[in-house]
Amino acid sequence: MTVTRADVESLDVTDPLRSFRDEFHVPDEVVYFDGNSLGALPRKTPERVRELVEDQWGRDLIRSWNAHGWIHYPRRVGDQIASLIGAEPGEVVAADTTSVNLFKLLAAGLELAPERSVIVSEKENFPTDLYIAQGLVELLGTHELRLVERSELEAAIDADVAVVLLTHVDFRSGELHDMAGITEHAHAQGATVLWDLSHSAGALPVSLNDAGADFAVGCGYKYLNGGPGAPAYLFVAERHQNNIHPPLSGWMGHEAPFAFDTDYRPAPGIERQLCGTPSVLAMAALEVGVEILTRADLTEVREKSQRMGDLFLQLVDEQCDGLGLSPACPRDSEKRGSQVSLHHAESYPIMQALIARGVIGDFRAPDVLRFGFTPLYLRFTDVWDGVAILKEILETEAFRRPEFQNRQLVT
Amino acid sequence: MTVTRADVESLDVTDPLRSFRDEFHVPDEVVYFDGNSLGALPRKTPERVRELVEDQWGRDLIRSWNAHGWIHYPRRVGDQIASLIGAEPGEVVAADTTSVNLFKLLAAGLELAPERSVIVSEKENFPTDLYIAQGLVELLGTHELRLVERSELEAAIDADVAVVLLTHVDFRSGELHDMAGITEHAHAQGATVLWDLSHSAGALPVSLNDAGADFAVGCGYKYLNGGPGAPAYLFVAERHQNNIHPPLSGWMGHEAPFAFDTDYRPAPGIERQLCGTPSVLAMAALEVGVEILTRADLTEVREKSQRMGDLFLQLVDEQCDGLGLSPACPRDSEKRGSQVSLHHAESYPIMQALIARGVIGDFRAPDVLRFGFTPLYLRFTDVWDGVAILKEILETEAFRRPEFQNRQLVT
Repeated sequence: MTVTRADVESLDVTDPLRSFRDEFHVPDEVVYFDGNSLGALPRKTPERVRELVEDQWGRDLIRSWNAHGWIHYPRRVGDQIASLIGAEPGEVVAADTTSVNLFKLLAAGLELAPERSVIVSEKENFPTDLYIAQGLVELLGTHELRLVERSELEAAIDADVAVVLLTHVDFRSGELHDMAGITEHAHAQGATVLWDLSHSAGALPVSLNDAGADFAVGCGYKYLNGGPGAPAYLFVAERHQNNIHPPLSGWMGHEAPFAFDTDYRPAPGIERQLCGTPSVLAMAALEVGVEILTRADLTEVREKSQRMGDLFLQLVDEQCDGLGLSPACPRDSEKRGSQVSLHHAESYPIMQALIARGVIGDFRAPDVLRFGFTPLYLRFTDVWDGVAILKEILETEAFRRPEFQNRQLVT
Repeated sequence: MTVTRADVESLDVTDPLRSFRDEFHVPDEVVYFDGNSLGALPRKTPERVRELVEDQWGRDLIRSWNAHGWIHYPRRVGDQIASLIGAEPGEVVAADTTSVNLFKLLAAGLELAPERSVIVSEKENFPTDLYIAQGLVELLGTHELRLVERSELEAAIDADVAVVLLTHVDFRSGELHDMAGITEHAHAQGATVLWDLSHSAGALPVSLNDAGADFAVGCGYKYLNGGPGAPAYLFVAERHQNNIHPPLSGWMGHEAPFAFDTDYRPAPGIERQLCGTPSVLAMAALEVGVEILTRADLTEVREKSQRMGDLFLQLVDEQCDGLGLSPACPRDSEKRGSQVSLHHAESYPIMQALIARGVIGDFRAPDVLRFGFTPLYLRFTDVWDGVAILKEILETEAFRRPEFQNRQLVT
C-alpha cells in the first residue's frame, strides 16, 4: 500500500526522539538533509559561546586556563565523545582537525609495525584520508600506500601491511563497514586498523572496544553538531597509548607542559596525542553539541535513522518512478549509514534546484545526490516534503534553469 | 631625576595610540601584562562571533561556506596578517596551530635542501618549537637537530644545515634577533630560516620580505588578540611556494578541493599549506583582532612598547632597589621585544601574589617574572601601578603566604 503524508505524520507523533528537535535551531523554511556535512546549531550554543568570550576570555583573561578549566577541554570533551563510540574515558581527546589526527595515527600504526611498509585503504575512501596517507608516505620515502577496491580489501591485508585505513561509513554510498570483522581479520594478519568515524559517530552506535579497535579519528562538525570547523577527535586503545611517539609532538602533549623543558617527553596515556593549543571557543561549542548526544539513546537514533532512509527510498520508488533516479546506496538499512544516495545524470543542477527550494543535501561527484539523516532534529515529514519537492523539480525539469548550472559553488 | 606618577600620567595624555584602548575590553581592576600570552578581548568580537554562530551557522547552515565566504577565511585573514609582517598578499594563510605549522615548514626546509641533514636551533628556543623539530627528526630517522647557545648560532650554520629554526623574540628574555642579518648569513651557507613570530608580530614592525625571509609561523592569540587558541598562521616566500610538497596534505590544500579526487594535487601558491577544516568561529574572532592592528601604525606601537619597557626598568631601579630583582632582558630597548623580564629567587610565589592583586604577568621557569606590553590597550600608568604593587609585595613579603606556593597552576 502506498505511503501517505498522514502515515508519515503519525511516525513523528510516536517518535521517541521528537523532543530533541527543540534543542536545535532549525530554520522553518528548510528541510535539512545536510547535518552529515554541517550539523545544526544547538540552542544552547550561542549563550555558551557568549559566556566563553565575554565572561571568561574578556573578564578573566589568561587566568581562565585555570579558573574555567580551559586546559582540560581536550580530555573533558574527549571523555564525552568516548561514551558515544564505545571507548573508555582516557582513550579519546578532542584536538586539531580530522586530517591532522589521521596523520598522527597513521604514523602510530607504522611505528607499531616497524618491519612492515604498507598502508592499505580503499580507492573510494574519503579523499582527505587518502591525501594524508599520501603525504605521510611521500615524507617518509620508505612506505607504500596500497589502494584497492572494497571487494579486494581482505585479500590486500597481507604480511607487509602495517595499518589499514578505513572510513566506517562511506561518504558517497553510505555503505557501512563491518568494524569488528575487518579489525579481527587485520589483527590476524598482524596489522592495525585506523577507523574514520566522521560519518558514523553520533548517527549510530559505534563499539570501538567491543570491536578490538586500535585507532580512530572523527569529525566534530557533522553528527556531533560542534559548529563549522569544530575540533576533531582521536581514539587510541589504552593498550597502544604508551607505545606511540607522536610525530606532532607539541607542548600540550608534553609530560610537563609548563616546565618549559628543552626535551620533549611524551605525557603518559592519551594526552601525548595533543599538539598545539586548540581554539577554546571552538571547544566550548563542540562540548554543547556532544553533550546533547550523550543524553540520547543511540539505539533509538539508529532505529530512526534506518526508518528515515527506508522511507526516503520507498517514497522515491513510489513517487519518482521513471524520473531518472536510482539508488547509489545499499537498500538494506543494516548495511547503510545515516544517509541515502541516489544517482541521476543531472545530479549537480538538481541539487542546486533543491537547495533553492530549501531542501538542502549535497552533490558528490560524479553524479550522486546525497541526503543525510540526523534523527535528533529531523522529522519523518521532512523526508516526505523533501521527496515531494524532488519529484516536482524532476517532473517540471526546473533543474534546467541556467542559475543551477554554476559549478563554482564549493559544496 | 626620579620619575613621578604625574610624569607618567602625562605620557598617557600625549600617547598617539591612546584611543585604541577603547576598542578592547580591559577589566578596570586588572593591570594586564600578559597580552603576550593571551591578548585582550576586542569590543567588536562578541557581536562578530554571535553573528557567525546565530545568523550564519544557525540560519544559513552549510550554505554559509558560499554565502558568507567561510572558504576564503584562511587567505583573507592571512592577507591581513601579511600586512603586519612585511609580506605580500598570497604569502600568508591563517591555519591550524603554531606547532602544526612549524612541522609543515620544517619539512619544507628539509625538502628544499635534500642533500643536507641538519636543523639548527637555540637551546633556549620556545619549547614547542624544539619539540616539533624533535618529533620530525625522530619520524624521519635521517636528520639531526643541532641545538646551540645563542652565541654559537652563526658558527653552527655550516654546509650540513638545511634549515635554521629561530624565534624572533625570545619568550623568556625578550631578546630580539637580527632577522635580516641571520637570514643573510644562513643563505650564504645555503640554508633557509624558519622564523617564529609569535612574540613579535603585532608588537613591532616585522619585515619578512625586506629580510629575504623564507618561512615564518606565528600565533593568533597573543599580540593579534584573536582569542584563546586562535588559529595560527604561516608565511612562505612566493619563490618557494610551488617547490614544496606539504607532508600534511589535507583537502583544503588540494588544487580542486571539491572534485573529491583520489590523488592529492597541491594547490598552486600558499593554499597548498592548508590542511583540514579550520574552526570558522575561531577565524571570525581572529579576523577582528587582526583588523584592529591593520589600522595601527606599527612604528608607533614599537615606540610606545620600547618606552614602556624602559619606564618599567627605570621604575624597578628607582623603587625596588635591594629587593632582589635583576634584569633578565636586555636594557637596550632596540635589542628587546615587547616585554621586560626580571630574575628573582622567589619568582613563582611573587607572580602568584601579583596576580592576586590584579597585576597579571607570567612566571617562566626557572626564576623569571615576565611582563608583556601591548601598546594598543596598555597605559603608562599601568606600568607605574604594576611596579608599585610589585614593590609593595616585595617589601611586605606578601609572596610568602601559603596560598602563593601552589605549583599546580598551569600558567
